[in-house]
Amino acid sequence: MWKIPMIIVNFKLYRQSSGINAPLLLDIIQKVREERGVEIVAALNSMDLTALHEKYNVPMILQHVDAVDFGAHTGKLNLVVAKERGAEGLLINHSERRLTIADIDILISQARKMNMVSVVCANNPRVSGALAFLAPDFIAMEPPELIGGDISVSKARPETITETIEAVKSVRDISVLVGAGIKNREDVKRAIELGAQGVLIASGVVKAKDPYGALNDLVEGMI
Amino acid sequence: MWKIPMIIVNFKLYRQSSGINAPLLLDIIQKVREERGVEIVAALNSMDLTALHEKYNVPMILQHVDAVDFGAHTGKLNLVVAKERGAEGLLINHSERRLTIADIDILISQARKMNMVSVVCANNPRVSGALAFLAPDFIAMEPPELIGGDISVSKARPETITETIEAVKSVRDISVLVGAGIKNREDVKRAIELGAQGVLIASGVVKAKDPYGALNDLVEGMI
Amino acid sequence: MWKIPMIIVNFKLYRQSSGINAPLLLDIIQKVREERGVEIVAALNSMDLTALHEKYNVPMILQHVDAVDFGAHTGKLNLVVAKERGAEGLLINHSERRLTIADIDILISQARKMNMVSVVCANNPRVSGALAFLAPDFIAMEPPELIGGDISVSKARPETITETIEAVKSVRDISVLVGAGIKNREDVKRAIELGAQGVLIASGVVKAKDPYGALNDLVEGMI
Amino acid sequence: MWKIPMIIVNFKLYRQSSGINAPLLLDIIQKVREERGVEIVAALNSMDLTALHEKYNVPMILQHVDAVDFGAHTGKLNLVVAKERGAEGLLINHSERRLTIADIDILISQARKMNMVSVVCANNPRVSGALAFLAPDFIAMEPPELIGGDISVSKARPETITETIEAVKSVRDISVLVGAGIKNREDVKRAIELGAQGVLIASGVVKAKDPYGALNDLVEGMI
Repeated sequence: MWKIPMIIVNFKLYRQSSGINAPLLLDIIQKVREERGVEIVAALNSMDLTALHEKYNVPMILQHVDAVDFGAHTGKLNLVVAKERGAEGLLINHSERRLTIADIDILISQARKMNMVSVVCANNPRVSGALAFLAPDFIAMEPPELIGGDISVSKARPETITETIEAVKSVRDISVLVGAGIKNREDVKRAIELGAQGVLIASGVVKAKDPYGALNDLVEGMI
Repeated sequence: MWKIPMIIVNFKLYRQSSGINAPLLLDIIQKVREERGVEIVAALNSMDLTALHEKYNVPMILQHVDAVDFGAHTGKLNLVVAKERGAEGLLINHSERRLTIADIDILISQARKMNMVSVVCANNPRVSGALAFLAPDFIAMEPPELIGGDISVSKARPETITETIEAVKSVRDISVLVGAGIKNREDVKRAIELGAQGVLIASGVVKAKDPYGALNDLVEGMI
Repeated sequence: MWKIPMIIVNFKLYRQSSGINAPLLLDIIQKVREERGVEIVAALNSMDLTALHEKYNVPMILQHVDAVDFGAHTGKLNLVVAKERGAEGLLINHSERRLTIADIDILISQARKMNMVSVVCANNPRVSGALAFLAPDFIAMEPPELIGGDISVSKARPETITETIEAVKSVRDISVLVGAGIKNREDVKRAIELGAQGVLIASGVVKAKDPYGALNDLVEGMI
Repeated sequence: MWKIPMIIVNFKLYRQSSGINAPLLLDIIQKVREERGVEIVAALNSMDLTALHEKYNVPMILQHVDAVDFGAHTGKLNLVVAKERGAEGLLINHSERRLTIADIDILISQARKMNMVSVVCANNPRVSGALAFLAPDFIAMEPPELIGGDISVSKARPETITETIEAVKSVRDISVLVGAGIKNREDVKRAIELGAQGVLIASGVVKAKDPYGALNDLVEGMI
């Protein structure tokens, strides 16, 4: 399993971080990861992860996998293929790819059996507590209205971080990550002071003018 | 563009044709393709296509791509990344992955601009005629109730093939493929005699005890 | 069938036009309809239509019906129940409730058999042409980016109206309605001059300070 | 609130219980409810509930409501309209109409504020425990593979009932209903002995040759 605290960089489907550009961001992540000795995980789309996982010393997870077994499922992926093609784990139920609770349950169970890391996303403290019952490896709470924005969850909603951790811990001892609008070391530092064990970040690094500088600054907040 | 008549082998997410087993079927397709000089295209999931497209001399398309541009689309793929990672085209609207007509329109338009091959699936002659208006490269008609079954569309519904071709041609001159339950040379031969320019096949090859024999038999019907 | 030209007022789920407020808008529609002798159709949610259809002399259609027969379909409605509960027809594939082309085909076919009016929505001229092949009673084209906005399709995209009518007529002789941002008599007049046989309107009437005045003004453009 | 133990009859969209036939089943439910003095709740589609709620002395809930506020939501219903049109509560996340966990959370919260009864469905003990954290009024657990079948959850999976109740109670004290395949008094009796506070039933009553006899038999198991 990964070291804690940690940063998950969600590449989403930004032009700056997908297809032919994915290596640019992975180069930076690998560099910062090695220079600073902190844990940084990359959440990639299925094609980029397949193409690049052997070329980097960076843990890679998928942004989504379907909750299906093998069979007549045209256009879908499952966790077995995901693992055979290099994924160490997966994001589940990201705000931009929400799932039914039945499918979340299937994916967390499958991941556990296959020794893959499950990071399930939640949109508020209540949903975080509910998902804790399903025992994923990580719960990543992001208020949807702050995702991609300029104000971080750490500044705009510190009490939401506290409530999420309380809700989760009341059910099960699971590591909590937080995200949405996180931009700098202060945001990360505050999140960790409030009890989070890491952050989920996308535009704050991917769309930064200087992604290397941005990522380094975030890492400062972890130490 | 591909030669006509042709066979598209849809690998779906069968255990026999996905992940570590995908090369087994690709070996067979490449062999038959070269021995017989006929066009055979493979429709793969996104991870297998990425991993294998450089290793085979077989045209490869994706089973599904999302109708989105670059942006905050966690867990999705678009056609630009698909092309950068090796896809020559895509299946659109397969019966196991149906899309809104707005998204079908976007994908066909995007594929045309990017010089990728669009194969749009339809479940009956009416829908085939409607989709012809959107000008994809191919229309693949499969009656859903026959997919994966033992009776082929050629035997059970020859009139549906005729009606599909008439519907499509009344709108635009687009090549028509047919599928569902196709198993042997007779099925292929009949489809082509009725005016189809190829077949879409999955379980008939993937789940055959002897996929090489099965594919060779299908090819016989094309010649 | 309804008189042409016509106005369809889509009540959507606005507070001003739903539940206890639906009668306020229906009173206005009934009044204008009788005073001016023009055709105005109301598209209601399923509960309001059921409660109110016997109390008004206004044709009422549903905003959505599921493409299913009778059976184990918890939480769904079909056209048989819709008709038994008072619906004269239905909107299909509205931009806020998009459907697969397979389901659009089913709903149009079912409506025809049951002698109910089908109004299928399209987001551009290409999709309008494709849907014409399925032979609905009306095609209502609305550019999604103008829906609910301040600039009407008639002013911002007159060429889109012309192209839609050409696309539809090249396939089949079906009445075309247009919508999105329509606010006043000029918008309606221009749409009809360009060949449309009516308009689809929502916020322009529902959210107007004076819905009676707004609807009367629209009617002016029809005469 | 309703008396306990109780039976919820899910009318689904069966021909025998929908549209013009809905009153036949409601007559029976009302009769048994009054004769036996037990709680029986009817889960109807939106149109039948609207048309019939004032004509019967039977608590009625909807089979599904959308997790939206008022606004531009063509083809959707929300809980405010549902209440204004007669619904006392709603089923949430039935196996035939699964929802994202974000939407389940919204609907349970809305129902609580509006003093409506929330019955959230779960497909196994784990999901039941997770949903308990969201504090609905009832959790109804149904193994999907037994729904509509001939073997009841009470006979085929008694341990699943026990595990569900344990999972729920470990989180919060919420009443648990069970369903799937329930046919007779033995099935109901066993479920209640195992700790359930009622059953969810559909085909066992709706499709019975003698629905009055079938419902009476189920009631025997409650007493």
